[in-house]
Amino acid sequence: MSTALYATGLDQGPANFTAQTPIQFIERAALAYPRKTAVIHGDLKRTWADTFTRCKRLASSLSQLGIQRAETVAVMLPNTPPMVEAHFGIAMAGAVLCALNTRQDPRALAYMLAHSEAKVLIVDQEFAGPIQAALDMLTQDKQPLPKLVEVDDPLYQGPRIQLGGLDYEALLASADPEFEIVRPQNEWDPICLNYTSGTTGNPKGVVYSHRGAYTNGVSNALEWGMQRHPVYLWVLPMFHCNGWCFPWTVAAMAGVNVCLRRVEAQPIFDAIRTHRVTHYCGAPIVQNLLINAPDHLKAGIEHRVQTMVGGAAPPAAMIEGMEKMGFEILHAYGLTEVYGPVLIGVQQDEWAALPLQERAELNSRQGICKQLEQQVAVLDPETMQPVPMDGETIGEIMIRGNVVMRGYLKNPEATAQALKGGWFHSGDLAVVYPDGYMKIKDRSKDIIISGGENISSIEVEDALYRHPAVLAAAVVAKPDAQWGETPCAFVELKPGAAATEEDIIRHCRTLLAGFKSPRAVVFGELPKTSTGKIQKFELRKRLES
Amino acid sequence: MSTALYATGLDQGPANFTAQTPIQFIERAALAYPRKTAVIHGDLKRTWADTFTRCKRLASSLSQLGIQRAETVAVMLPNTPPMVEAHFGIAMAGAVLCALNTRQDPRALAYMLAHSEAKVLIVDQEFAGPIQAALDMLTQDKQPLPKLVEVDDPLYQGPRIQLGGLDYEALLASADPEFEIVRPQNEWDPICLNYTSGTTGNPKGVVYSHRGAYTNGVSNALEWGMQRHPVYLWVLPMFHCNGWCFPWTVAAMAGVNVCLRRVEAQPIFDAIRTHRVTHYCGAPIVQNLLINAPDHLKAGIEHRVQTMVGGAAPPAAMIEGMEKMGFEILHAYGLTEVYGPVLIGVQQDEWAALPLQERAELNSRQGICKQLEQQVAVLDPETMQPVPMDGETIGEIMIRGNVVMRGYLKNPEATAQALKGGWFHSGDLAVVYPDGYMKIKDRSKDIIISGGENISSIEVEDALYRHPAVLAAAVVAKPDAQWGETPCAFVELKPGAAATEEDIIRHCRTLLAGFKSPRAVVFGELPKTSTGKIQKFELRKRLES
Repeated sequence: MSTALYATGLDQGPANFTAQTPIQFIERAALAYPRKTAVIHGDLKRTWADTFTRCKRLASSLSQLGIQRAETVAVMLPNTPPMVEAHFGIAMAGAVLCALNTRQDPRALAYMLAHSEAKVLIVDQEFAGPIQAALDMLTQDKQPLPKLVEVDDPLYQGPRIQLGGLDYEALLASADPEFEIVRPQNEWDPICLNYTSGTTGNPKGVVYSHRGAYTNGVSNALEWGMQRHPVYLWVLPMFHCNGWCFPWTVAAMAGVNVCLRRVEAQPIFDAIRTHRVTHYCGAPIVQNLLINAPDHLKAGIEHRVQTMVGGAAPPAAMIEGMEKMGFEILHAYGLTEVYGPVLIGVQQDEWAALPLQERAELNSRQGICKQLEQQVAVLDPETMQPVPMDGETIGEIMIRGNVVMRGYLKNPEATAQALKGGWFHSGDLAVVYPDGYMKIKDRSKDIIISGGENISSIEVEDALYRHPAVLAAAVVAKPDAQWGETPCAFVELKPGAAATEEDIIRHCRTLLAGFKSPRAVVFGELPKTSTGKIQKFELRKRLES
Repeated sequence: MSTALYATGLDQGPANFTAQTPIQFIERAALAYPRKTAVIHGDLKRTWADTFTRCKRLASSLSQLGIQRAETVAVMLPNTPPMVEAHFGIAMAGAVLCALNTRQDPRALAYMLAHSEAKVLIVDQEFAGPIQAALDMLTQDKQPLPKLVEVDDPLYQGPRIQLGGLDYEALLASADPEFEIVRPQNEWDPICLNYTSGTTGNPKGVVYSHRGAYTNGVSNALEWGMQRHPVYLWVLPMFHCNGWCFPWTVAAMAGVNVCLRRVEAQPIFDAIRTHRVTHYCGAPIVQNLLINAPDHLKAGIEHRVQTMVGGAAPPAAMIEGMEKMGFEILHAYGLTEVYGPVLIGVQQDEWAALPLQERAELNSRQGICKQLEQQVAVLDPETMQPVPMDGETIGEIMIRGNVVMRGYLKNPEATAQALKGGWFHSGDLAVVYPDGYMKIKDRSKDIIISGGENISSIEVEDALYRHPAVLAAAVVAKPDAQWGETPCAFVELKPGAAATEEDIIRHCRTLLAGFKSPRAVVFGELPKTSTGKIQKFELRKRLES
């Protein structure tokens, strides 16, 4: 009898099992804290009660436009209130949010609209131009066009182009504020579709589930030990992995979404000061922008600000600069396929007493598996066995848990490849230290092989970043008749700073083995993705031509 | 094609879907904060790394004792380190924790051990007596006996009775610290079994799932907006709904479990002062104990303490007393079947400015649905329709969501009854106010019907609690030839306080309609359950005899 003890008469039913979804978060915020501020945008302040009602109106509007369960609604929006609303209202219509990267070119946009079979497209006036061009391409290709909804944000100061779509505010005004939410039938139902930047071939559409969005929304709050009512500044674009799922986290904590159309130092510091911002996320390039901003912009900010930095490891100068501003920086590593950050550079109490350089060294590691994800490991991709925790043996970062994508839309081969062996394969090469922290050595494809020796482009970049004149740097392989490949550095200098190629190479030789030091240095602005990642494929192209 | 867009090629697999379980929380705490304190017990301090290893050793020991997946391991433990370990180590062996109420009598204990088919029983020396008696009863009844493991806590100062079982520490010492965790195959797998107090008939065994425990563990942290590393004092017994799931919450936040063998004012205030306790939960009776403790015990506590109080609504005097101590009190309502609290008396900012009496009135309401539960509603049990939100119409509190029990063990009829219509039926009668807050009017069976009028026993008790001499009070129906029933008050006075029956009745008449005021007052200590709930069925018995 024993083995069957708990096996019968204890089944799932509507009373004790419901689909996990971040829709719960906004329902709870509106129920528990209806009069608390949910959204700030310029002079506009909206409560959680109002925001929830607007989301129900959005869901109602989409339903009236004919949107069915599991159809795609695309948006081309900056970090404005409609973008916050899109993260709930679209899900509440049973539909899937596809937040387009607002810096994509029309050709890529047309591809995404067609591939996602978007039935509705909500677009901010700022992006009417590229959207018009993308729609023209779809028309030429005889593809169906999505229904257009236009957002005319009073804070947008550029030229307007009428696309002939419906007006967002008029649509909401005529919709049903008591719309009955279309809840997911299963927590595995799709909630978002995010296209990867597509450095090679067509962009891939990463599908998120309600369960994953819910889990990561909660994970963010636990990871940061967020108190109730955090004030979150929208520096990181919400189109980027759904802003690392923070729209849902902020709702779960009944916090404030401080919106921001443009990532510039002045409005960022103004918002931090005025609204007493407690948290924001940003790419290294943004953090540098803030550190290097003139002092008068930073005046009057006395409170503690928490920031999470994704992408490249924060060099010592960045950590020091952040400390000077009184900002606590947390280093994170992630990918679109895992809903944003998955490794967290958790800081140990003992580190605080160490010299800056040592701290920077420890913080430069990508860290350990985040809260609520099952496991991150560095495996030998051949044997799928973990590499020794020696800080030296390189393997591939692999991830499994509830915050891993469902797969790539309409691409079962790529999905099977990415998830083979029961792990998501990140493509990033790393080592593990005895304390379990992982450090990325390179992307598989970014390793430089010179005279048979592997050179980590990241190691060379770390050396470049230690040069006081360097604002941003990237190292790629340059084809070389003698060595096969040699490292070539692309360097963007700080405003007003100066350095010669010889200076830079000499600096690197003091820190690196000779064969690892760049053979050539190219100065100039670096090509970046909309999220601040340096586009190495563009740099490689330059070396080819 | 559209409807099938997300339906294929995006399946669950080991890479993107894993069973949710609170085991994740301790794994993460040990990984991220290995040197942080996990457990304090007297002079003993243990880190998360050590605690995790001990839990693996416990799982290993159980496995060596022959414990199979989904078998029951019972424990009879006070709030000590082994009780914390039981909340992880037993689950990590794939088994089900049945935490026995340490104040149960041997007959009830024997029933629970037999009904749960417990294969192992871990018992603290303090409870060797009743356990011996329970085991003797099992032997007499020719029931199989569980294997015994004995905990000899150095902080236990009473007499020892050797039961002839294995020694807990010796067992752990000989176990495998690298034991491979037996993970749930499905998040619906059972993790705990909690017997209700059984005021009528045999106790019922409430089954919790890994999914539910994980969800409630997280919910607690979000609800309280807990920062990392909270210091949690174990006043509430862990055998009571698994301490409202806080063993898992504390692990999720890498906090400190401050253990406590006995609920007395001195050790509680000492612990709060010494360890800078940030959070604890407790029944009203415990809160009153603290408020009424001599001032010198409270000296030197300067920091803010958060406390959650379950059970009866906190009267104005309690709220005031807590405020004087600098404690922030949060009122909650729950039941074993929903893993502890499910309604939370969320306090609105605006309330802070109101007079004490008004605040007490607002705080006396049981509140709104907690974070991560799907829904709590007051429904007409006949029609299953919600009652109007008018603060007057009475219905039954019903609950649905992921933090509702799987059901009652080996009792499919009671399970079906409790979960019928897709809701868990609480048996508590309540009204809903226009702001969505619910207020309990009575248990179905506690309503007093006098001359055809319904009298809420809770309303009368509220009036009694406002009398300055009253420490605890309960009102039950007394059979009456003329009226059918009349309210009879049982009153426990504060130490040193005095009041006559006439005083009390006169006091009530100033606050209540005449027919609601008690006709009789009986003075003396009130019978309470181990968790501080007053046992009304005992009082009713007294009126019968």
